[in-house]
Amino acid sequence: MSDRPLTAPSVERVAFQGEPGAFSEAAARRLLGDTIETIPCASFDGMFDAVESGIAHACLAPVENSLAGSVHANYDLMMLHNFHVIGEVELRIRHCLIAMPGVNLGDIKTVMSHPVALAQCRRFLQLRSQIKKVVAEDTAGSVREILSRGLRDHAAIAGRHAAKVYGAVVLAEGIEDHPENFTRFLLLSPIAYVSEDADKTSVVFSLTNQPGSLFRALAALALRDIDLIKIESRPIEGQVWEYRFYIDFLGSMAETRVQNALNHLRELSPDVRVLGCYKRAERPQF
Amino acid sequence: MSDRPLTAPSVERVAFQGEPGAFSEAAARRLLGDTIETIPCASFDGMFDAVESGIAHACLAPVENSLAGSVHANYDLMMLHNFHVIGEVELRIRHCLIAMPGVNLGDIKTVMSHPVALAQCRRFLQLRSQIKKVVAEDTAGSVREILSRGLRDHAAIAGRHAAKVYGAVVLAEGIEDHPENFTRFLLLSPIAYVSEDADKTSVVFSLTNQPGSLFRALAALALRDIDLIKIESRPIEGQVWEYRFYIDFLGSMAETRVQNALNHLRELSPDVRVLGCYKRAERPQF
Repeated sequence: MSDRPLTAPSVERVAFQGEPGAFSEAAARRLLGDTIETIPCASFDGMFDAVESGIAHACLAPVENSLAGSVHANYDLMMLHNFHVIGEVELRIRHCLIAMPGVNLGDIKTVMSHPVALAQCRRFLQLRSQIKKVVAEDTAGSVREILSRGLRDHAAIAGRHAAKVYGAVVLAEGIEDHPENFTRFLLLSPIAYVSEDADKTSVVFSLTNQPGSLFRALAALALRDIDLIKIESRPIEGQVWEYRFYIDFLGSMAETRVQNALNHLRELSPDVRVLGCYKRAERPQF
Repeated sequence: MSDRPLTAPSVERVAFQGEPGAFSEAAARRLLGDTIETIPCASFDGMFDAVESGIAHACLAPVENSLAGSVHANYDLMMLHNFHVIGEVELRIRHCLIAMPGVNLGDIKTVMSHPVALAQCRRFLQLRSQIKKVVAEDTAGSVREILSRGLRDHAAIAGRHAAKVYGAVVLAEGIEDHPENFTRFLLLSPIAYVSEDADKTSVVFSLTNQPGSLFRALAALALRDIDLIKIESRPIEGQVWEYRFYIDFLGSMAETRVQNALNHLRELSPDVRVLGCYKRAERPQF
């Protein structure tokens, strides 16, 4: 974060993983509004490559789901590409049953979606056991396929945003078993930037595993009354007994106590890296 | 853990999520050998229900993958059902291309698998772009389908164990992009039990979010030289500013210092719960 520019990088084109209408695209619109251009990518690697090649200014990476946990693969890509977190958004994952306009729930004989979405709507589907389940590569892609092929007895499970993108209708909303299903996304840019209103910082560092090593590292925050809001450990592959820690805390790099805490942490870990400092997301209304 | 029996519970029938031949079944055999009966279940809920109803003695739940992170849903089910961790096993997720006996790689026109497995083998498939990709509900289920329908131009992506279960052949092994792909599973039982050789303990507790609250809680371990090997925080839904922490440390409930540390932790958290105390898994050879 040493060459921190004082002006915000342009974020007009944002890459996301999935098809148009995906939850990730809805999250990008929630964070950045309707004027941005969103660029669908087939994979997480492809999404990072789109930013490296300049096709996109930034990418929006899912990093944590309240049911499924953290997406380690995206943290790995963030480190590999040396990208910076410049924003955060949370989205409620609310599954909808989506079909062609004019179709009713009683017409549906087949439901298509990604297996994770089908599994998350198990109870809804169990009560309608006459409906055949078909797995598909993508949630939003299932909506696209139904519309493009004119399948009047099919429905897809996807987010409301997908219905809007493809001109489909929502037959049922909130059909997931566990309504407390949120995903947290980070906006990642090759250009470091800390906004005026930034109030949250994400850091990754490693420690040799000795009893008390994490306790000592957390002292760097606790002694300065800095509020830790997430911590996760992860074994470093190929290095037995070394661990990498991901922490998020409240505070900005602009604050002296945060700078002091990071300097203190650097005395204890050989590789403290600030992933970014950004405005904390509001959790969507439940 | 108060009514801890002195004899090991019988674990002859073990429920797992997936079809016969799934990675979870291979993990159950790695932990418990070939003499156990394994019971395939369609969902994680179904797997826990199989134990509640007595169909199975225990279930083997995936709780953490080195790329995908922790499986929070299984921690939730463990708490809901009040099950105890009585064992642990790690499995390397090594994807194979599997087909009917007598079929060669050059014969394959279509590859079937779960979308996550297809995504994890992206590079292998990109180099063979003439092969059509078809999503399926399950990795091992794709092997079963190819064999039962006699599809000589199809292959599935699944673990080696699935080829053995269905009498199929492995055309290529280790086709995943990221070879450092491990999953950790916990053996869960409705009966608490701590074996003689137990050396690892898993605990969950909540803390009100105040600066330094986790630091003080970790003192309970650090002051007794207890080695923390995993920590993860998770917001408690519906309770803003309260967090639940999942920690694993080296040590057995049979040790006085561990009992003292847990008593100390109970002074700081209203709901310390020992998930289990068990023999630590060996990571499989890379």
